[in-house]
Amino acid sequence: MYEGAVQELIDELGRLPGIGPKSAQRLAFHILEADQDDIKRLVTALVTVKERVKFCSICGNVTEQDTCNICRDSRRDPTVVCVVEESKDVVAVERTRSFRGRYHVLGGAINPIAGVGPEQLRIRELLTRLNDSQIEEVILATDPNLEGEATATYLARMLKTIGIRVTRLASGLPVGGDLEYADEITLGRAFEGRRSAIG
Amino acid sequence: MYEGAVQELIDELGRLPGIGPKSAQRLAFHILEADQDDIKRLVTALVTVKERVKFCSICGNVTEQDTCNICRDSRRDPTVVCVVEESKDVVAVERTRSFRGRYHVLGGAINPIAGVGPEQLRIRELLTRLNDSQIEEVILATDPNLEGEATATYLARMLKTIGIRVTRLASGLPVGGDLEYADEITLGRAFEGRRSAIG
Repeated sequence: MYEGAVQELIDELGRLPGIGPKSAQRLAFHILEADQDDIKRLVTALVTVKERVKFCSICGNVTEQDTCNICRDSRRDPTVVCVVEESKDVVAVERTRSFRGRYHVLGGAINPIAGVGPEQLRIRELLTRLNDSQIEEVILATDPNLEGEATATYLARMLKTIGIRVTRLASGLPVGGDLEYADEITLGRAFEGRRSAIG
Repeated sequence: MYEGAVQELIDELGRLPGIGPKSAQRLAFHILEADQDDIKRLVTALVTVKERVKFCSICGNVTEQDTCNICRDSRRDPTVVCVVEESKDVVAVERTRSFRGRYHVLGGAINPIAGVGPEQLRIRELLTRLNDSQIEEVILATDPNLEGEATATYLARMLKTIGIRVTRLASGLPVGGDLEYADEITLGRAFEGRRSAIG
C-alpha cells in the first residue's frame, strides 16, 4: 500500500476497463514522474470530453453538438440507415468511404449474461425513426460474434413486420487473409455466400 | 478520426505507457459513457497526486511530506540502507516485513540503450548520505535482470572503496516454485548459493 494520494490514484486508474492492479501502479508512477504540463493536458482532455461530448438525439453517436455532423449532413442519403453497436463502429464504416447513408448507434448488443436486453439498447429510438422518416433500407452491421448476431436476428424479426428492406453485411473471407487459416465458420459462410465469378 | 474532444482524449490516453491506440479508444469511450462523478474522482486523484506527492529529499521515495514516513521513523535502523530502483520496490520490500532499515530509491537502473547512465540515477545522493550518516551496511536490491545487475555491480565497485559493508539479495529458487520449471540461470545460482542444511 502507498501513501494516500498515490494509492487513491492507483485505485481510480484500476477502475478503468482493462487496467489491472499492476498496470494501474505503473500508470500512477508514470503520472507521478511525468511533466506537470502533460498531466494538465490529460486532465483538460478528460474534463472537456465530459463537458462537451453528448450523444446525438437522432442516431446516438457521440457528438459535440446535437444533432451530429452526419445527421445534419444533407448530402448523405436519408433513405438508408446503418445500424451499429457502438460509435467506434461508425468510425470503422466511415473509413471504408463506401457508405453514404445515416447511422443508428444501439449502444451495445443483446447480451443476457451481462444483463443487456433489447430494452437497454436504442431500439425504441430506431423504431420511432423508422416511423417518422423516409428510411427505405436498414443495414444491420452489428459485430459478427454471438451477441452481434443475436441482436441482428432480433432486429431482423422485428423489422420484418414494418415492410422495410433489411439487409446484413456479408460474411466471408477477410481480404488479404489466408484461406487455410480461416476458421471453419467463416469459411462455411464464404461458401454459402458465394457469387458468380463471371460478369 | 473522431470529433475534436474525443480524439484529443484518445491522443492523451495513448501517450500513457502501455496504452496502445485500441486501448486508448476503448478507455475514451468508457470515460464518455461513465458517470460524471466517477470521472470527477479520477480527475481529482490525478490533480491531487501532482499537487501533493513529492520525492523524499533523503531517500527519493514518493511521499506527501518531505521527509518521508520511513526516513522520519526513529524506530527504523539508521545503520542499514536498502538500495532499490523504484518506489514500488520499497512497497514490495515493506510487504515482507523482514527489513527494518531505511531505503534509497535510485529512480531506475543503468540502461545504456535507453540512455540511462549512473548520472541519471540518485547515486550522488547515496554517496552524500553515506558520508554524512551512521550507515554501516548497504543492501543492493536492484532487479535481478540485466540492468539491475549492471547497476548493482557498478555500485558495488564504487562502494568498495568506502569501506562499508555491501551485500546483495540472494538469488535462488523462488519459494513455492517447481525445480523443473526454474530457468538454468536461476538454478545455477541456487547451486552456487547453496548452504548447509544441517544446523
